[in-house]
Amino acid sequence: MTAEIIDGKATAAELRQKVADVGAEFRQKTGRAPGLAVVLVGEHPPSAAYVRSKVKATLEAGLQSFEHKIPAETTTEELLALVDRLNADPAVDGILVQLPLPKHVDEQAVLTRVDPDKDVDGFHPVNVGRLSIGLEALVPCTPLGCLKLLQKYVGDLSGLEAVVIGRSNIVGKPMAQLLLEANCTVTIAHSRTRDLPEVVRRADIVVAAVGRPELVRGSWIKAGASVIDVGQERVEQPDGTRKLLGDVAYAEAAEVAGSITPVPGGVGPMTIACLLRNTAVAAHRREGLPDPEGL
Amino acid sequence: MTAEIIDGKATAAELRQKVADVGAEFRQKTGRAPGLAVVLVGEHPPSAAYVRSKVKATLEAGLQSFEHKIPAETTTEELLALVDRLNADPAVDGILVQLPLPKHVDEQAVLTRVDPDKDVDGFHPVNVGRLSIGLEALVPCTPLGCLKLLQKYVGDLSGLEAVVIGRSNIVGKPMAQLLLEANCTVTIAHSRTRDLPEVVRRADIVVAAVGRPELVRGSWIKAGASVIDVGQERVEQPDGTRKLLGDVAYAEAAEVAGSITPVPGGVGPMTIACLLRNTAVAAHRREGLPDPEGL
Repeated sequence: MTAEIIDGKATAAELRQKVADVGAEFRQKTGRAPGLAVVLVGEHPPSAAYVRSKVKATLEAGLQSFEHKIPAETTTEELLALVDRLNADPAVDGILVQLPLPKHVDEQAVLTRVDPDKDVDGFHPVNVGRLSIGLEALVPCTPLGCLKLLQKYVGDLSGLEAVVIGRSNIVGKPMAQLLLEANCTVTIAHSRTRDLPEVVRRADIVVAAVGRPELVRGSWIKAGASVIDVGQERVEQPDGTRKLLGDVAYAEAAEVAGSITPVPGGVGPMTIACLLRNTAVAAHRREGLPDPEGL
Repeated sequence: MTAEIIDGKATAAELRQKVADVGAEFRQKTGRAPGLAVVLVGEHPPSAAYVRSKVKATLEAGLQSFEHKIPAETTTEELLALVDRLNADPAVDGILVQLPLPKHVDEQAVLTRVDPDKDVDGFHPVNVGRLSIGLEALVPCTPLGCLKLLQKYVGDLSGLEAVVIGRSNIVGKPMAQLLLEANCTVTIAHSRTRDLPEVVRRADIVVAAVGRPELVRGSWIKAGASVIDVGQERVEQPDGTRKLLGDVAYAEAAEVAGSITPVPGGVGPMTIACLLRNTAVAAHRREGLPDPEGL
């Protein structure tokens, strides 16, 4: 068996086009495009690159982008004051504070200061709680992207056994909540799990989100399972070049799985697309409009 | 094999005694005992009985009890105004709004109005989110009681396979979070789970919280597993009497399990004890004191 490749790039492009359409309609109704503010503290090069991609995607979808690049020396108080201004700014529907923040900044204080209705990253405790309870929430972008891929390639997930490997606040835990909401029987596995291969072998759906290159072997995958690989680590090869590797040994797993995300081109592109999606949804809710359909 | 009986009654009595000791110390430090306000709307007899037990236990532990019995006709606005007064009252450390509320009342609006720092039921989205993220939270009483029983009778839970049957916001979901935090590999099963017996057979720890009398059979239990039964339904017997039954077929399961909670006398008594515990903890946090040890 050779697995169907889950095309995250194409799925993300479709979603970004839908956001563009919805954004244009929103502009007609309200006289403004949905707006996303991105805050970058300091010069951390990978963060700067992420922010550039996000700003580019925001503009390409016809949304407004507000970029705030501030020095690494910025204090927690100064950052909180900026967040307060963005919370109060009616043109801003979404606020993204790029992580990691410099060590002297109280990250939790900053994330908790963001207005939950503008929290397009879905990291605020209020959104985490609302997701768990089943209330209207803003959901973290990466797990939301994984869910959208599964819904497109698998369809109805009800009753399927899902195993999430990794229990981070950003991916593993919200992923488990989303799969539970989709009526999967959900297992969360992690570094303390005793027999990880055996746990993974039960799964109709595997989501790997631990950041350990090629941890999950082909022999762990149930025949026909859907495999979503959130990992992407640059690993030096014997010839000195660097290769982007996921948490799943792709070539092995693709022999067994029913469908699988490649790395790159799988989950990665969905994260930014879902950020734009969350911004458009937040804009509608803030204006008292119904959630846009098909997002 | 005959299972060890997990004595919830004795464990709850110990916890209540600890709360009494901690409360007395708190009183010495602050000049007041921790205070719990209970709000009962209308005449629903089982709710009235619960409230009586809670008030009695509160007074027995030397805590202050503030009882608010208000008519069934109370509007959402009136109830919100009462919650606001209790939020503002410095003598009140914990607020419990007895559920269910009359149908005309917006339950979610009321629960969300309670100050999260006084939310001793742990139902507020902020506490749900904080529990999930791993921040300091107030945790729902019933799953907290189950965890305490497991910690006492099993000890270190790390690496154990736990299966939670039921995904309610009040028990199943927070139970899963607590077991995950205790480093279990956690599975949440529910009405849409395809092969529930097989899922339960994996478990070193089973928590059943679905309210379906004797759903879980002895043949589903792994030898030596610990079984926590949250169910308690009054079921009419052939002779016309009524018997309190759990979600687990106790006699069968006790043949196989390593330890098991009886019904009654298992989880039930722990819920009120944990409510008192949460009130004492909330009081300490509100006064800027460190969390009392051993609670």
